[in-house]
Amino acid sequence: MNEFAKAAGDILGRIRESRPVIHNITNFVVMNTTANVLLALGAAPIMAHAIEEMDDISGISSALVINIGTLSKTWVESMTYAARLARIAGKPLVLDPVGSGATKLRTDTACEIARFSAPTAIRGNASEILSLTAAGGRTRGVDSVNTTEEAIEAAKSLAGERGNVLAVTGKNDFVTNGTLSLFISGGSPMMTSVTGTGCSASVMVAAFLAVEKDALLATVSALALFKVVAEQASSKSQGPGSFWVNVLDRLHNITPEEFQSSARIEPA
Amino acid sequence: MNEFAKAAGDILGRIRESRPVIHNITNFVVMNTTANVLLALGAAPIMAHAIEEMDDISGISSALVINIGTLSKTWVESMTYAARLARIAGKPLVLDPVGSGATKLRTDTACEIARFSAPTAIRGNASEILSLTAAGGRTRGVDSVNTTEEAIEAAKSLAGERGNVLAVTGKNDFVTNGTLSLFISGGSPMMTSVTGTGCSASVMVAAFLAVEKDALLATVSALALFKVVAEQASSKSQGPGSFWVNVLDRLHNITPEEFQSSARIEPA
Amino acid sequence: MNEFAKAAGDILGRIRESRPVIHNITNFVVMNTTANVLLALGAAPIMAHAIEEMDDISGISSALVINIGTLSKTWVESMTYAARLARIAGKPLVLDPVGSGATKLRTDTACEIARFSAPTAIRGNASEILSLTAAGGRTRGVDSVNTTEEAIEAAKSLAGERGNVLAVTGKNDFVTNGTLSLFISGGSPMMTSVTGTGCSASVMVAAFLAVEKDALLATVSALALFKVVAEQASSKSQGPGSFWVNVLDRLHNITPEEFQSSARIEPA
Repeated sequence: MNEFAKAAGDILGRIRESRPVIHNITNFVVMNTTANVLLALGAAPIMAHAIEEMDDISGISSALVINIGTLSKTWVESMTYAARLARIAGKPLVLDPVGSGATKLRTDTACEIARFSAPTAIRGNASEILSLTAAGGRTRGVDSVNTTEEAIEAAKSLAGERGNVLAVTGKNDFVTNGTLSLFISGGSPMMTSVTGTGCSASVMVAAFLAVEKDALLATVSALALFKVVAEQASSKSQGPGSFWVNVLDRLHNITPEEFQSSARIEPA
Repeated sequence: MNEFAKAAGDILGRIRESRPVIHNITNFVVMNTTANVLLALGAAPIMAHAIEEMDDISGISSALVINIGTLSKTWVESMTYAARLARIAGKPLVLDPVGSGATKLRTDTACEIARFSAPTAIRGNASEILSLTAAGGRTRGVDSVNTTEEAIEAAKSLAGERGNVLAVTGKNDFVTNGTLSLFISGGSPMMTSVTGTGCSASVMVAAFLAVEKDALLATVSALALFKVVAEQASSKSQGPGSFWVNVLDRLHNITPEEFQSSARIEPA
Repeated sequence: MNEFAKAAGDILGRIRESRPVIHNITNFVVMNTTANVLLALGAAPIMAHAIEEMDDISGISSALVINIGTLSKTWVESMTYAARLARIAGKPLVLDPVGSGATKLRTDTACEIARFSAPTAIRGNASEILSLTAAGGRTRGVDSVNTTEEAIEAAKSLAGERGNVLAVTGKNDFVTNGTLSLFISGGSPMMTSVTGTGCSASVMVAAFLAVEKDALLATVSALALFKVVAEQASSKSQGPGSFWVNVLDRLHNITPEEFQSSARIEPA
């Protein structure tokens, strides 16, 4: 166990103790999935998108997740307004730019939120992260056609410019604040056979940020936990159906100590 | 087996025989979950929110569920209109005030439907039920911060004023029509680690109301069934993922006789 | 193994190799379900409904599914626009007329898309298919009250007039292009105890159409695969919860050879 794994386990313990409320403005496909991920982790999800209740929801939540899948115009207004409330209140914001690069609507929305809403962390696959730069990225549907490695420089440069944490997830995960960068290994190929795994990683990042000020450490810890849980779940699964059942079971049961002894986080 | 358990099993048998169509105007998070709960139970779900089809849907359904999670203004119009159709046709209406107390939008909407749409039954956690009274309730996200016991007087008083059944669910469930009150025990702590368990309880209440005129008895029976099924499912689960799989399996397989011998319903 | 079973397995192999992107404009209830079905099958789902991104999504996808459950007016605009893009680009379109016959909104929408958007294939239960004809059909909620056999003439006549493939699914599936007709047997009664099985069949048809020009063969192959997978899944399930987990596992693991030896497709 290195210092990062040690710290990651401690943060997990704090989530279980304090049960932070995480506000999600997210896509229709994964609402149920990510609510269950947060519950299994030990956090308290709230899913709400009506602009009329953004003030109230912001007042009771400890972190905000903005996920741009199944986007439409009215939702974008709620997203940017909720992001402003989070910024004013000093609460962490995670941006998940689902499908950015695939359509102009998504790329424009993701770039605008990335630029003007000052997300604490942005988590996407390599193509999505590349799409946030001037160079752009290619996607295939909502799948990445780029490797994590291809997006490293883009992530570093975006993080350096804007002072947020950039996380590129894939076979290996790369996380950077522009100065310090880390790699996370583990996980399972099965993660690409279930919808909403990226979205799930993002809500876990939000829960870790809700209880840990060091945004790089929080982000890395969340992603390392997902890799550990997915690896354990995969080893006893027959396919994507049983895999996801096992992910929720493992996420609920894994102790901080087990997590610390299995997390694989290394300086890049 | 007491008289309530006996009656509860009989009502379950009638649901299986008549397969009532239950119309749901509900939140995005649980649509899939509650549709599957109704199917596993032996009822026929229909999920529809467009005001243009409310007349037709009302004509073919035997009960209506209004669930105010992930609310927005246009949906409220459909809810109140569908509720009016149900009232005119004498069909049971269940109100699930998800997150009432957490935001003004939700509290106002829940109070308005509770007051003007004459729901046959209202099912919520303690904080949600308290939020419907002048005293108000506190919530934490969509979780209750109150115990069932704290909401007993509020539930009795609301039920007494308005002639509907109030159900407060939690570790124990309390159900009252203002005159007669009942407690249901059983269940599993795992019910709080899966999203949509409260919403699932509400759609089960609607299915029981669709085949049983005694609203107190129907409500108590539905909640008792959920507690029995959750307890059985929990005993063979490793976590929230397998728990929910087992809930659906048990709900589908439990016989009226098994249910009668396990239901724990007692006068309060 | 007859010639149809042989061809069906070959098409499955091509889906796994080419991983076609399938664009879905679908209902809220099954978005997660059908995305997971496509992933388990080996295809790449994209769920998007905003009219602003229809051009971009159309450009990157190989087939389109239009599913009219949980309909509302703004979605219909996106559906008809996306259908037009598919037609211009020569990409296959599958129409799933969920609940057509149950409400005027749904029947009108389904009939309009069936008539003016030239779907490559239409898949529905018997009542839904009957509702597309002048004679009309009856439904009970979103369930069929007609048998597959009752809808055979309607399906043949619709297919003959309009040059598309009509698929009536139920205990047995009937598929016709107006000239050649086929029956598929197998499956499991458990398919009616889980929401979204019809919707899942429709997205599988789209994935098969994405890699096979013969629309009758593609449609029959997809439906035969679902029947085989459901039958295998059912044999090791305790109820609808474990059934669906097993469906996803089997769909992911079944080889083209296994499928060929189990598919039951016969000329009608």
